[in-house]
Amino acid sequence: MTDPSELGGLATPAAIVDVERMAANLDRMATYVERHGLALRPHTKTHKIAALGWEQIRRGSRGLTVATGPEAVVMGDVAPNLLLAYPALGGGRLDAIRRLSPSIELDVALDSDAALEALSRAAQAKDRVVGVLIEVDAGMHRTGVAEPEEMLRLAQRAGALPGLEFRGIMFYPGHIRQAVEEQAAPLAAVNELLQRYLDALTSAGLSTAVVSGGSTPTAFQSHLVQGLTEIRPGTYIFNDRTTAAVGGCAWEDCAYTILATVVSTAVAGQAVIDAGSKSLSREEIRAPEGTVIRSAEGRIGPATGLGALLDRPDVVVKATSEEHGLLDLSGTDWRPQVGERVRVVPNHVCVSVNLQLALWGVRGDNIVERWPVAARGWTLEA
Amino acid sequence: MTDPSELGGLATPAAIVDVERMAANLDRMATYVERHGLALRPHTKTHKIAALGWEQIRRGSRGLTVATGPEAVVMGDVAPNLLLAYPALGGGRLDAIRRLSPSIELDVALDSDAALEALSRAAQAKDRVVGVLIEVDAGMHRTGVAEPEEMLRLAQRAGALPGLEFRGIMFYPGHIRQAVEEQAAPLAAVNELLQRYLDALTSAGLSTAVVSGGSTPTAFQSHLVQGLTEIRPGTYIFNDRTTAAVGGCAWEDCAYTILATVVSTAVAGQAVIDAGSKSLSREEIRAPEGTVIRSAEGRIGPATGLGALLDRPDVVVKATSEEHGLLDLSGTDWRPQVGERVRVVPNHVCVSVNLQLALWGVRGDNIVERWPVAARGWTLEA
Repeated sequence: MTDPSELGGLATPAAIVDVERMAANLDRMATYVERHGLALRPHTKTHKIAALGWEQIRRGSRGLTVATGPEAVVMGDVAPNLLLAYPALGGGRLDAIRRLSPSIELDVALDSDAALEALSRAAQAKDRVVGVLIEVDAGMHRTGVAEPEEMLRLAQRAGALPGLEFRGIMFYPGHIRQAVEEQAAPLAAVNELLQRYLDALTSAGLSTAVVSGGSTPTAFQSHLVQGLTEIRPGTYIFNDRTTAAVGGCAWEDCAYTILATVVSTAVAGQAVIDAGSKSLSREEIRAPEGTVIRSAEGRIGPATGLGALLDRPDVVVKATSEEHGLLDLSGTDWRPQVGERVRVVPNHVCVSVNLQLALWGVRGDNIVERWPVAARGWTLEA
Repeated sequence: MTDPSELGGLATPAAIVDVERMAANLDRMATYVERHGLALRPHTKTHKIAALGWEQIRRGSRGLTVATGPEAVVMGDVAPNLLLAYPALGGGRLDAIRRLSPSIELDVALDSDAALEALSRAAQAKDRVVGVLIEVDAGMHRTGVAEPEEMLRLAQRAGALPGLEFRGIMFYPGHIRQAVEEQAAPLAAVNELLQRYLDALTSAGLSTAVVSGGSTPTAFQSHLVQGLTEIRPGTYIFNDRTTAAVGGCAWEDCAYTILATVVSTAVAGQAVIDAGSKSLSREEIRAPEGTVIRSAEGRIGPATGLGALLDRPDVVVKATSEEHGLLDLSGTDWRPQVGERVRVVPNHVCVSVNLQLALWGVRGDNIVERWPVAARGWTLEA
């Protein structure tokens, strides 16, 4: 029998966190924001685990960012300050605001009158003040107002509604993740755009106390964005294959893997593992053709497929079905046996974590933690 | 306040099952297999809920198919017979076999010596007999032996190992789902291929008692496959947008939707809902360009994107991020308001269900059931 306190004793697929790599990732970001005088409110959608939120808080994060009601309630246990980076509509997020202690400072980002009105009602019902950030579109064209005039109108309305206080603006340059080789251009564009919004706020005598931006791929360039006061990267705690492909981290900074077992080698040219779309997810990297990922050991892998082996970035998960991952063996002379174990770095760690019941923290081959992924879903289970 | 027993009282996103449509889907398949003398062991990876497995058993299913350890243990509570359509390697599936009552008849499908040996040890430890199906590759090139000789070798080995009994073969024509307009051709190819395997078994005096195939898109053509004894469709209980796109069901047979709230209309030409890749998943339909989906009301939608509205199949989810879905309004004059609710049919229901904590059964607008998705993950939680 295998020792249950070691990696070999885990049933597969299982989500593994290298706690030393994770700590290094957390320390690196804490050092960066301190050096540049930026506030950090990390996005906890990546891990959904209070103990990891606490690791971020104790390293000096001003607060934590959340996207859902359960994330708000779970992170409220460890954070004195929360940013709900999502309008409180649809029920679950309003329920969470009702459950949060009024002693927790809360900001909510939104881009509509309906969201402002719902938030004002929730703040009044709780006899508390909620900060409002108006979301502006920084070029991703997902959410956020498109013009400074609309921002000003909503900001002024926020200031007038009971229970609310206008505190600044939020944007999300998520499109930069999808444009590997154009990082310089979007950054300049974001700067130009942001200036228009900040000028409008200043002219109107409105607060620019919070200017919240930044996601992991561009986090370490945040000091180049003029007027920015805080960033809220999420992925950086673990990193993933997409972050490595866009140059946001080194391959060796990837702290999260799916431990998997080879279950079939019957079809020539491939090996099948027991990690499929239900544990890795099925998100492709949107990178220009020919993008490669380099490890410190000099191994080079393409940025194609749905994941790659931690120790062999040139061995790619070329396809998945629900419980099957197909390792492409065409570019390697490695030939695994049925029963052999591998560790896969997924393309997008946030959606992989969301598929797990729990994450296992390991130090080398020793299991040192088991963290239930507590904040999954959109309502708190009774 | 909204009545909590009605759809309007649910927090969004929420997974909704129309129980009348589901019952009709279950009845249709039960009638089909009865008429054609086929056995049915539905794949429960689609729902992962014991109560729904029971709905399949009480309509005459011979047993239930499972892919993981938790699915086996959960479905063991309601089924006298299980097919584990996956080799018992990696830990979780062997644990499940140890936990299953020996009174439950069990078959396991596999394609390697290592899987045979592990299964034999598990059967002996439990002092029981486990049936073996050798998996053969029917053209999908995922798993399964490629030649009748290899099948015979493994079948004979199964017959010789203690605790095991060779019972037949299994195949999965999953590639047909990806080849909408070529359904006739793969069917002929499957027939030809299958005949080679069945001839080899007969010549060797080996059992053809179980010849297990079939998935939802081709389920109603199963009587055309010669020698087939059973099918194990999964998706048919709910159906989904891909099944509708490939002609495996009518749009009105889709019983599963994600209830979502419009949270932003700030960016022109689209509306953003609170159902993103963490509730719909991000799986595209692999259909030839120009494939359309028709509803009985005559509305026509393209098979592009990541989902479409139940009542407006022409309104497509054109992109998702984790908690955002972008409805493309370019082909409609419908303009939803922030706060409005919609129901989205996802492309692939099995992976969407796997993202939910629970499903809500509804009859019209009334909530009649709440089913926790009990068999998620790969180990049973303590």
